[in-house]
Amino acid sequence: MESAIPEHLKSARTRHRRVPDDYAPPYPSFVARHKPSVLRVVMAYFGIQTKSTSSKAAEQAMASIVSRFASNGGPTHWDRAQYVDEAGFTNIVTVAYWDDRAKFDGWFPAARNAWTGDQRATGEFGAFIEVLYPSVEGYETLFSSLGRPEGVAVLADGMSGEVQEHAYWGGMRDRIPLSQTDEMAPSGSARAIRDGARIRVIPNDNLCLIRSGQDWGDTEASERKMYLDDVEPVLREGMDFLRDSGRSVGCYANRYMTVVGSDGAPTEKSYGMSWWKSLAALERWAESHPTHVRIFGAAMKYLSTLGPAAKLRLYHEVTVARTDEQFFEYVNCHPQTGMLNAVQTVDAA
Amino acid sequence: MESAIPEHLKSARTRHRRVPDDYAPPYPSFVARHKPSVLRVVMAYFGIQTKSTSSKAAEQAMASIVSRFASNGGPTHWDRAQYVDEAGFTNIVTVAYWDDRAKFDGWFPAARNAWTGDQRATGEFGAFIEVLYPSVEGYETLFSSLGRPEGVAVLADGMSGEVQEHAYWGGMRDRIPLSQTDEMAPSGSARAIRDGARIRVIPNDNLCLIRSGQDWGDTEASERKMYLDDVEPVLREGMDFLRDSGRSVGCYANRYMTVVGSDGAPTEKSYGMSWWKSLAALERWAESHPTHVRIFGAAMKYLSTLGPAAKLRLYHEVTVARTDEQFFEYVNCHPQTGMLNAVQTVDAA
Repeated sequence: MESAIPEHLKSARTRHRRVPDDYAPPYPSFVARHKPSVLRVVMAYFGIQTKSTSSKAAEQAMASIVSRFASNGGPTHWDRAQYVDEAGFTNIVTVAYWDDRAKFDGWFPAARNAWTGDQRATGEFGAFIEVLYPSVEGYETLFSSLGRPEGVAVLADGMSGEVQEHAYWGGMRDRIPLSQTDEMAPSGSARAIRDGARIRVIPNDNLCLIRSGQDWGDTEASERKMYLDDVEPVLREGMDFLRDSGRSVGCYANRYMTVVGSDGAPTEKSYGMSWWKSLAALERWAESHPTHVRIFGAAMKYLSTLGPAAKLRLYHEVTVARTDEQFFEYVNCHPQTGMLNAVQTVDAA
Repeated sequence: MESAIPEHLKSARTRHRRVPDDYAPPYPSFVARHKPSVLRVVMAYFGIQTKSTSSKAAEQAMASIVSRFASNGGPTHWDRAQYVDEAGFTNIVTVAYWDDRAKFDGWFPAARNAWTGDQRATGEFGAFIEVLYPSVEGYETLFSSLGRPEGVAVLADGMSGEVQEHAYWGGMRDRIPLSQTDEMAPSGSARAIRDGARIRVIPNDNLCLIRSGQDWGDTEASERKMYLDDVEPVLREGMDFLRDSGRSVGCYANRYMTVVGSDGAPTEKSYGMSWWKSLAALERWAESHPTHVRIFGAAMKYLSTLGPAAKLRLYHEVTVARTDEQFFEYVNCHPQTGMLNAVQTVDAA
């Protein structure tokens, strides 16, 4: 049993963990381990929003960014997912990961211009870029099994052994190294700035992002039926609540998406990603909303029973980002798109 | 909105609350407020254990202790409850409360001798005494409504306004004043000492007691049906788990009892009382055991919806006691009785 916080990120605590030192979780979970030389990662979501189910221009844009990914300075890993949002638009989101901020900074300007530049203002689809650049102290990961890293964990040097800080409310916070010394409280409020055709959003400090995924590709018969019939509908109900009523609990936006393959076809993986005013707001929702409490309870029971025999794979990554670790930009998108949903008015630049 | 910790018990924190300062609970709850002059309370459980449903000798003992309660130095409040335990014995438990340790200390020796003295060794029933003497920093209360205090709260000067620290996992700990500076971790392990016919149990430091009650006497029609059909069976399932398998999660004993009136007839009130190795063990069970998670979820939903219109009354009191704030004594009881269940062997005095 090891701590989710790696040795080189341990600091003199001013804040305590929520569990005693002899706490033993009821089932195993694992976290991604970067090399100590990795100081910061980049999570960049490139989104397209369109009313038509197939848009040649959107396809070209997506093919083009994949070419850019392969160019010098491109990301170490990326994947793509899609969903139909509350306004009836298809959103296709390509997320790319770097573990070197300087590399991203060199690569990004041209990609940004191609993705959200003036040519998008009148195009047949909207586009957005949502980026966090957290230090390694500012985020955490969690995996229910080994052997198939997802998201930022694909960049990691490897996975941990069984970690202690999970399977209790507060584990998410306790896995983030900053929690040793910092409440990670939000401050300020989101505002929007118009920059030509683009709208930039400057969110509050200590904004929180969760990407939480499931992979049922390996499940068979009864386990698959259990996931699809019992778990997924409850999960979807929770995701729908966050999408439609999230602002009442501090969730600015939620996308419950299906991962698609390189051919654009849906896979047996999905993930929800949501933007939160704070880690505390995410904690409160997770602990008290009936749908999530049911999900948590079901997962606890399921993983406690099946343990390593479970074929369903669950993971998440949770980030708390300072104001200077964020970048949000929207063009030609409807007003409920991502962090646009956090702002009421748009100021001139 | 006020803190559950009264002003005069606030101290310079070395440990943080689990929620931010702007946390707002979704429904109101209240705590008991003692006069600042109250430094310590006494919670004394006097139990009788018998195989026969009616025992003249047991009835005499119970009548006798009620007479003693009325004598000089007696408690400010008491009530009585009963249940049939896992070994098939009827247990009748009379709990009495003082807010003055010196008064209790003067009253107790004669009452103790009458209750668990040598004359019990061969009697037709068993007897036990379980007492905690916590300082006011060492326990908390919580009530879903005003107007009908129960347990230690009957001794209080009054009730608080709406408090902040509730309706989230960790609220229980945050309401205990000691949590401002103390993890309240357990240390040592329980041992038993034979003292004539009596067995004394010396538990670990920072043992935890919860008394958690419900009163459905005021509910009507649909609310009553909801409690009896939907809530109570789930509650009972959780209580049965603690009684039968509690040791696996750090619960030494659980009694799910029906409160009886002065005539011995059952009322429409019940409470569970359980002895735990630590507050942390109680927290983990409450958060992760499916039955309790369901109870919590149901209560959250119910109280959030009905709010002050709810006629079902819920309350609890939770105490963490140092070794020198505990007294446990058993005579002629079966080995699973109360804290006897925490010890494997009995040493000579």
